[in-house]
Amino acid sequence: MKLAHLGPAGTFGEEAAMRYAPEATLVAYPSHAAVAAAVESGAADRGVVAVENALSGSVAETLDILIHDTTLQIQAELLVPIVHNLVVKPGVQATQVKVLYSHPQVFGQCRKFIDQRYPAAQLEAALSTAEAVERVMHREDAAAIATVRAAELYGAAVIARGIQDNDSNVTRFVVLGREKTTPTGRDRTSIAFTFAEDNPGALAGVLTEFAKRRINCSKIESRPTRETFGEYVFLIDFEGHVADPKFAEVLDAIRPLCASLKVFGSYPRWR
Amino acid sequence: MKLAHLGPAGTFGEEAAMRYAPEATLVAYPSHAAVAAAVESGAADRGVVAVENALSGSVAETLDILIHDTTLQIQAELLVPIVHNLVVKPGVQATQVKVLYSHPQVFGQCRKFIDQRYPAAQLEAALSTAEAVERVMHREDAAAIATVRAAELYGAAVIARGIQDNDSNVTRFVVLGREKTTPTGRDRTSIAFTFAEDNPGALAGVLTEFAKRRINCSKIESRPTRETFGEYVFLIDFEGHVADPKFAEVLDAIRPLCASLKVFGSYPRWR
Repeated sequence: MKLAHLGPAGTFGEEAAMRYAPEATLVAYPSHAAVAAAVESGAADRGVVAVENALSGSVAETLDILIHDTTLQIQAELLVPIVHNLVVKPGVQATQVKVLYSHPQVFGQCRKFIDQRYPAAQLEAALSTAEAVERVMHREDAAAIATVRAAELYGAAVIARGIQDNDSNVTRFVVLGREKTTPTGRDRTSIAFTFAEDNPGALAGVLTEFAKRRINCSKIESRPTRETFGEYVFLIDFEGHVADPKFAEVLDAIRPLCASLKVFGSYPRWR
Repeated sequence: MKLAHLGPAGTFGEEAAMRYAPEATLVAYPSHAAVAAAVESGAADRGVVAVENALSGSVAETLDILIHDTTLQIQAELLVPIVHNLVVKPGVQATQVKVLYSHPQVFGQCRKFIDQRYPAAQLEAALSTAEAVERVMHREDAAAIATVRAAELYGAAVIARGIQDNDSNVTRFVVLGREKTTPTGRDRTSIAFTFAEDNPGALAGVLTEFAKRRINCSKIESRPTRETFGEYVFLIDFEGHVADPKFAEVLDAIRPLCASLKVFGSYPRWR
């Protein structure tokens, strides 16, 4: 299997792909949109994209691809723990470090470690944690905050592990493919829908259809439409598979309430 | 008035602060948490924080501050258009540019321009668009993607304006303060709530209380709690002011349905 993921190698996109299918041939793409396009064209069999991080929230680029740009179906979900590490050129000591390289968002996730150990360090932005490691391989006075895998890829040394502020930070990834899935008995379905006009009762009406059938909605979110700020696409994840009549029925019940309704896929719940 | 905002100067946080209170003394802070802390301590009278961007979605850091960390009340909201520009050291020509500096997120918002005009350019990450301008002031072969204001602050030249892919991209900011507000007749209220346990009907029940009273919910979102991935805090914006009995009543109606309920504030709707 050819499995597309957001690159470069050594970032969490690659880690998610390796966890999903250790035997697959991995292919790195520069954006989530390129990952989806590769699966659509057949250049890849499946593609792994990030949808949500426990600390930073939804990945808007991925949601917009699912809402607007693709008919690919979600085949699976997986949760990947977000672990950051301090990485240097081999031989560099922790006390030599005066400059820290990483993706800007990662600095925010390691604020306590930086404040305690490197309060005076100069922070340098990189496009990815992997690029950060590449940068510090030329320097004796700098460290990168990156994955262990990125350190291995560049021959760098890990001098502190698990330096993130929050040990329960995880990112949720989904796997996109062209196939329909079959129920496993422990599934989740992701859908998106809109309403024709401002209607205070519309969303309550949709949720009542789920509640009547005792269907658990594990996530709800509104995303601004691309057209007008203040108009929203609603996203719901619920427990069940659309090929099961009980869950097909709830979709039939809400369809007349919505201006549009799109099913992103039904797939086994993680664990 | 002392008005705190996310710095550095020349970024959209400063622009929002200048639009909200052109006469105020602006004070830049390094994080949204520091902005809130400055208002709480009295070091600033009010603080401007970003809550939502039309393309990239909610600003998780700000939502988590409102949910967990502060009792400050929202005093106002404002929408700021996101306009990106190509900025160089004075005298540098567009054809000399081989390297582009900006915040990583900004490259994603200007992809069409970059692909068409600078497909071979090397992309260099900066911690902010203002830092990007600072970097290119030492170079003849580079341009920053940044605000016009950042260009002015550093004495740089703007050689292309409005280079973002999407002309309707806006960021919604709110102004935090210590005061209670009074109704203006055209207000919005932001609240957050949780449920005691997995209850398929709970959210439908809350929304039904709004629907029964014909109260328009302009936004709904679920955020993972900090404790357990898969448990959620729900956020709703609705049109109305909690000092108005009609809207105080809906809060009284939903309070027994919730494990916790927090009002972030009632404030005039933008425009």
